[in-house]
Amino acid sequence: MAKANKHTLAVTVENKPGVLTRVTTLFRRRGYNIESLAVGATEDPNISRMTIEVDGDDKIIEQVTKQLYKLIDVIKIVDITEERSVDRELVLIKVRADTNVRAEIVQIVEIFRARIVDIGRTTLIIEATGDAGKISAIEDSLRPFGIVELVRTGKIAMVRGTTK
Amino acid sequence: MAKANKHTLAVTVENKPGVLTRVTTLFRRRGYNIESLAVGATEDPNISRMTIEVDGDDKIIEQVTKQLYKLIDVIKIVDITEERSVDRELVLIKVRADTNVRAEIVQIVEIFRARIVDIGRTTLIIEATGDAGKISAIEDSLRPFGIVELVRTGKIAMVRGTTK
Repeated sequence: MAKANKHTLAVTVENKPGVLTRVTTLFRRRGYNIESLAVGATEDPNISRMTIEVDGDDKIIEQVTKQLYKLIDVIKIVDITEERSVDRELVLIKVRADTNVRAEIVQIVEIFRARIVDIGRTTLIIEATGDAGKISAIEDSLRPFGIVELVRTGKIAMVRGTTK
Repeated sequence: MAKANKHTLAVTVENKPGVLTRVTTLFRRRGYNIESLAVGATEDPNISRMTIEVDGDDKIIEQVTKQLYKLIDVIKIVDITEERSVDRELVLIKVRADTNVRAEIVQIVEIFRARIVDIGRTTLIIEATGDAGKISAIEDSLRPFGIVELVRTGKIAMVRGTTK
């Protein structure tokens, strides 16, 4: 029986206008739900890489992979769900930080190896990276102080070890 | 005269299937070029935030903002181009690293306050965060060793200081 779960696809595409729309439209039309998506440059300026987290069993992923390959700008798709990989996302958190709690917040930041990147009158902006679990943990630790604003990049991933 | 340049939009949207497609389709149809896009969760699980870098003069940005507001799932759009903001993206770089050059690479990693997150037989994976300038600088410093693979998240941004 096919297993329902979250898959991570690393999709290499030509860096051309409209490719992002073509990829997300394909998911939308087929009714596949994108959990998170990050798209950015690679070592080659003509090539972008999308990291897409998608809900679905193995059969759905097989179908979506076939459909993606039919798009002219798609170069390569790797399902890295089962691979040993480095999974990372970046979060910026603006947290309420009056003088009397700053020391406590600084301690949390150090524990998570995060960084304070802005100091406002009554707030701090904290930058942290990690897998989804670590990001959730730092969010939970800061919530009692009051999270004013939070923005995440979506996950990127890379297969560990010497692969090429 | 309107100034041609890169704008950064922080777009708050309902976290619903299809919203990403609707937003990117709007840009595509109007012929506006998305330079980078990051989409991720916020402090409210029902709300996502997209950070979109788009090429265009002030008039184009005004038009695209109006059009975006017509989309039912778009809650708020802030053009943070002119604001004092923290701009960050995350990069993972797999670099060739035979034993004889490892010490040199470790030194570069320290200078950029980056992190080694995986050690393979002949490669390392390095994680770094920063604005576009810093990411380019670390890429340039590592290129001579041989970049095997590189993936970036796209930019996220947050207005500095106590804004809410």
